Amino acid sequence: MNTENTPEIDIIKASQSKISQVDFDNLTFGNTFTDHMLVCDFKEGQWQKPVIKPYEPFLIDPSAKVFHYGQAIFEGMKAYRDANNQVWLFRPDQNMDRFNKSATRLAMPEVPKDIFIGGLKQLVALEEQWVKGGKGNSLYIRPFMIAVGSGVIAQPSTQYRFMIILSPAKSYYSGEVKVIIAEHYSRAANGGIGAAKAAGNYSAQFYPTKLANEQGFQQIIWTDDATHTKLEEAGTMNVFFRINDTLITAPTSERILDGVTRKSLLDIAQKEGIQVDVRSLTVDELVKAAQDGSLKEMFGAGTAAVVSPIKGFQYQEHYYELTPQDQPMALFLKEKLTNIQYKLEDDPFGWTVHV
Amino acid sequence: MNTENTPEIDIIKASQSKISQVDFDNLTFGNTFTDHMLVCDFKEGQWQKPVIKPYEPFLIDPSAKVFHYGQAIFEGMKAYRDANNQVWLFRPDQNMDRFNKSATRLAMPEVPKDIFIGGLKQLVALEEQWVKGGKGNSLYIRPFMIAVGSGVIAQPSTQYRFMIILSPAKSYYSGEVKVIIAEHYSRAANGGIGAAKAAGNYSAQFYPTKLANEQGFQQIIWTDDATHTKLEEAGTMNVFFRINDTLITAPTSERILDGVTRKSLLDIAQKEGIQVDVRSLTVDELVKAAQDGSLKEMFGAGTAAVVSPIKGFQYQEHYYELTPQDQPMALFLKEKLTNIQYKLEDDPFGWTVHV
Ligand SMILES: Cc1ncc(COP(=O)(O)O)c(C=O)c1O
Ligand SMILES: Cc1ncc(COP(=O)(O)O)c(C=O)c1O
Repeated sequence: MNTENTPEIDIIKASQSKISQVDFDNLTFGNTFTDHMLVCDFKEGQWQKPVIKPYEPFLIDPSAKVFHYGQAIFEGMKAYRDANNQVWLFRPDQNMDRFNKSATRLAMPEVPKDIFIGGLKQLVALEEQWVKGGKGNSLYIRPFMIAVGSGVIAQPSTQYRFMIILSPAKSYYSGEVKVIIAEHYSRAANGGIGAAKAAGNYSAQFYPTKLANEQGFQQIIWTDDATHTKLEEAGTMNVFFRINDTLITAPTSERILDGVTRKSLLDIAQKEGIQVDVRSLTVDELVKAAQDGSLKEMFGAGTAAVVSPIKGFQYQEHYYELTPQDQPMALFLKEKLTNIQYKLEDDPFGWTVHV
Repeated sequence: MNTENTPEIDIIKASQSKISQVDFDNLTFGNTFTDHMLVCDFKEGQWQKPVIKPYEPFLIDPSAKVFHYGQAIFEGMKAYRDANNQVWLFRPDQNMDRFNKSATRLAMPEVPKDIFIGGLKQLVALEEQWVKGGKGNSLYIRPFMIAVGSGVIAQPSTQYRFMIILSPAKSYYSGEVKVIIAEHYSRAANGGIGAAKAAGNYSAQFYPTKLANEQGFQQIIWTDDATHTKLEEAGTMNVFFRINDTLITAPTSERILDGVTRKSLLDIAQKEGIQVDVRSLTVDELVKAAQDGSLKEMFGAGTAAVVSPIKGFQYQEHYYELTPQDQPMALFLKEKLTNIQYKLEDDPFGWTVHV
């Protein structure tokens, strides 16, 4: 039964839109929010009726478990406007599935499809004037869930709040980034929560990233925490390496987020006849490939930045700069993917979903 | 300069105390809060004037970074009332130091001593009628800090809120617990945030703990994530093993919280002439010691439960039950420690601080 488009949702409209005050040409990522948000509470073992209401602060108890035990997960996805003025989502089912996997790992209740996808569609439809046309423009969608039950004892909450907030976006990163390979700090443990989009995974990276920034690197490429020999992913992006004409990226695991951009790029690459090799590249291999010139490209892949080319990497006090390519695979793949997202090319995979 | 006792704090008193509605004989841990809380905001690069005000929910933006990136840390300590009606804190400097280490690891600002200790003392003094006399009774103190700055981009916040809330407590665990040794899931990564009292560390344990509970075990003894061979700590307690007459506990590390109870018990044990060995006990050693009978005791140690005797452990589908001891070291050490905390014995270490 497909009820995803028609959940019963109460809608309380904002008395006035803020949209005229927004400078869409000068947006910084994630700081501007649309007029409405979706809120749905879980209590007494079940999800209550969702409500779409004006975006505004809400009241929460100082002892809410989200503050003390970090029971919080989120997703990140986008809505795009095509040349025919239609608004599209990209693989929202993937984000929902990942969200619910994160929920399970954090001992939180799953959010049913009619609330997650149905609610999302209604909210985006209501805010559709915030989805600006033109490639690069999008409406960033942030579903998240927090434990709102009170009590300072380290046990799962019995009360949760699922919310969706929306933020108009241009592109996330500008220019090429320099990265540093992690030699001491780590992002995720074996048997930990690295594969979940859990809030706590991100603040854990802030301090090491600050140290990297101070050294002139925008991002850290994380390695496995046990040996620091396997290249894993970046802060909010999976990473790809092009050695000669083969595209290499780490397999997903308990330590690595199963990125929607990553898996979409892999499918596109395969369809385009590019050789792909899903395996753990070692730091040694990377350094050798940089030295012998077979390392042609490195790039990050994620919803926010789509594809983010990497200029060079630092490892053990040595900086390796990549030679710019005439026809970078990163840009080719980015073009293919964004053409699908903006409906400029056919969508042979059936990834786009109309709002 | 010792200004810790006299920070400038605004005090807004509750119009009426809730204390008469509280059944102090039937408290569940962490669910009842006193009349007031301390709130201190950090913005524009500095700490603002702290305020003590009625305990109540507060407003926060849906995009606050604590919800999305888990930038949140906390502490747990207690106030005790002695037979002369005086109220005491136990090693609050240790909690402050650990709090500020956690802050640094999560890229949050340190809280100055006059706010942390000074504010704490003023708050506890104001709520002193909530500190009930009698061994086992205490006022649990929960200082915490959350990122309140808004914006859904994974970067440290520029705005924080430091709060202290208080909860009257009896004892945390009842009876002896059965534990299971972690074979797959883990608590902390090498180079991760396991040594910080970061909110995200706790929700990460909820799901594996739920699985353990379903199998009849109250706690998990975490092992190192790389090899699962070294015994590390429990969810909110460090763990001790007594093999023959030697007390063994893991050294603190990046993966293990530097517990105040742990270090205090080590000092007491040493003073009492008990042989202590601070080293990583392996799971193999534990199993062998259980089999040959040299494993006499296991117990958890932490502020909430003080000392929590372990009845037996499960490892690889096998349950090992410990033989009850006539004179358990766990109880001897607990007695010594609580006698200091409740001023029933001399405090040769200078650990207690008068409020
Ligand atoms: C840790 C991490 N890795 C990878 C990604 C990329 O995933 P996706 O392509 O689904 O945005 C993200 C961001 O979403 C992330 O947070
Ligand atoms: C992970 C962890 N280990 C150990 C402890 C024990 O530390 P303390 O004795 O300072 O309470 C705690 C609780 O505070 C904890 O959260």
